[in-house]
Amino acid sequence: MTPLIDGLQYANWSEKIFRQMRAGGVDAVHVTITYHETFRETVLNIEAWNRWFERFPDLIFQGRSASDVALARETGRTAIFFGAQNPSCIEDDIGLVQVLHTLGLRFMQLTYNNQSLLATGCYESHDSGLTRMGREVVAEMNRVGLVVDMSHSAERSTLEAIAHSTRPIAITHANPFDWHPARRNKSDRVLKELAESGGILGFSLYPHHLKGGSSCSLEDFCQMVARTAEKIGIGALAIGTDLCQDQPDSVVDWMRSGRWTKAVDYGEGSAAAPGFPPMPAWFQDNRDFGAIAKGLGAVGFSAPEVAAIMGGNWLDFFARSFPPAGSAA
Amino acid sequence: MTPLIDGLQYANWSEKIFRQMRAGGVDAVHVTITYHETFRETVLNIEAWNRWFERFPDLIFQGRSASDVALARETGRTAIFFGAQNPSCIEDDIGLVQVLHTLGLRFMQLTYNNQSLLATGCYESHDSGLTRMGREVVAEMNRVGLVVDMSHSAERSTLEAIAHSTRPIAITHANPFDWHPARRNKSDRVLKELAESGGILGFSLYPHHLKGGSSCSLEDFCQMVARTAEKIGIGALAIGTDLCQDQPDSVVDWMRSGRWTKAVDYGEGSAAAPGFPPMPAWFQDNRDFGAIAKGLGAVGFSAPEVAAIMGGNWLDFFARSFPPAGSAA
Repeated sequence: MTPLIDGLQYANWSEKIFRQMRAGGVDAVHVTITYHETFRETVLNIEAWNRWFERFPDLIFQGRSASDVALARETGRTAIFFGAQNPSCIEDDIGLVQVLHTLGLRFMQLTYNNQSLLATGCYESHDSGLTRMGREVVAEMNRVGLVVDMSHSAERSTLEAIAHSTRPIAITHANPFDWHPARRNKSDRVLKELAESGGILGFSLYPHHLKGGSSCSLEDFCQMVARTAEKIGIGALAIGTDLCQDQPDSVVDWMRSGRWTKAVDYGEGSAAAPGFPPMPAWFQDNRDFGAIAKGLGAVGFSAPEVAAIMGGNWLDFFARSFPPAGSAA
Repeated sequence: MTPLIDGLQYANWSEKIFRQMRAGGVDAVHVTITYHETFRETVLNIEAWNRWFERFPDLIFQGRSASDVALARETGRTAIFFGAQNPSCIEDDIGLVQVLHTLGLRFMQLTYNNQSLLATGCYESHDSGLTRMGREVVAEMNRVGLVVDMSHSAERSTLEAIAHSTRPIAITHANPFDWHPARRNKSDRVLKELAESGGILGFSLYPHHLKGGSSCSLEDFCQMVARTAEKIGIGALAIGTDLCQDQPDSVVDWMRSGRWTKAVDYGEGSAAAPGFPPMPAWFQDNRDFGAIAKGLGAVGFSAPEVAAIMGGNWLDFFARSFPPAGSAA
């Protein structure tokens, strides 16, 4: 049976949420463990996860390889795969790529909205592409099996990452720009080059990425998926809900403003609506994936196609991406 | 065939030394990666090791489990197991025990000569035993599979560690006090309680631990091993050479004085002889283990007994000690 995998969540973790993952039959989730945190702060976040794993061994465990998805299915648990939304966690030290991979990091964004040491984020006015260090770090990520994620990166940087990376990259949570022209959504060119290189796109349910925002209909969303499949094929398509369940608005402030500004950056929000937007009525938490699968079927996807989008494609991508370069899975 | 395992080295690592390990048929070595370094500094040391592993994959690789010793033998390489000589690397954060275990740490001393947050070192005038945090950290080390090493600890602290630890502990590099009354050598009571609890002693070849220092004869050393076997049995006996090959004397100054004093602490040395002492003529580097094995045979150990002391006992201890509590090997 094909697993159910979500390509991005950053919740205010609790037993309640882990139980909802089980109720929803979610076999694996890529969770964000760090944004602007330093290496040491990121390790504190890993320590917090270690305590979750110790407290709830019957609900969750740390995923490290694609085979852990099957283990999750067999043991009725959810495999949690770590990711970073910004490279702050490696500081200016390429050696931390391998160290964090050993600690279980499996995805790392090269940028989060702003210019980083590695590449340019989607909110900068000028995109200078991969930096000198960026090219070195991508090669090191390729070597150890840490996936390059360009969800929050700018166009040229994303295209250069696709071209420079010797392994397929991910855009774990975003939608097509031509459906909803948000800065975080991706151009047809990016989506095509992503798919042609073996990469993967997780469709986002974060309202700022949706046409119509929180009131976007399930049917609209699923028709957008169908149109994307026509453009770039089904093999590159997956889900990355960007579910930020139960988070206080102080968290979205940290995500957007970190320590890089003394002012407030509203990111995709605004002074009038600075907080987390409400999720669509049809996707409130981990128990609602069945609705998406049903919606995909309703717009014409076959059962095997739905299964691929709901997890099979992520599983295949995990298997290709997480082993060190040149090793067997 | 029984493997050859050294229970402690801290060399100025180089291709030359790795090749000498191969020439000497050394299957596994517990290497010190940190003394007084903070967590972040310890991670820098791990990064340096990662670069050694990447540069010399045909000579060495990182050992994590007892089965890696067999892998080393099969592939003609030396498995390198990480250890810490002081708990500075966990700072005041018990969560770092698991994090460092995940990064491959397999031994950690609770103290290095001085009082630590966990226990008392052998150079303090008062030994107050395990601290509150010490008891918690020992339990956590037991849980994750990180060996408690009391080589540089004081008597009461060592006895309390043996008693409190639910898994056998190690004294990776020391000798019996009744043979050579150095502060770093261990009383009969410690050695007996160590052995009765399933622990292990690595006999040290560091001259300050030897009767007669650098001029200690191989026969004297081997006769001491034989007398220790009579006292506590053969199952607890192994080798931990404390080889500090090619190190400049600035390193022994760091080992002794760290950042805890502005003066110079000479430790086992003296103002007249502040540096590393010369190793015995019969043990200069990793190619000389054969001489020890021969010397042990000459004082009456049978071939299987020699094999146990030269590596079999370490292998058994690794298998019992490195898996997380309650898991299979």
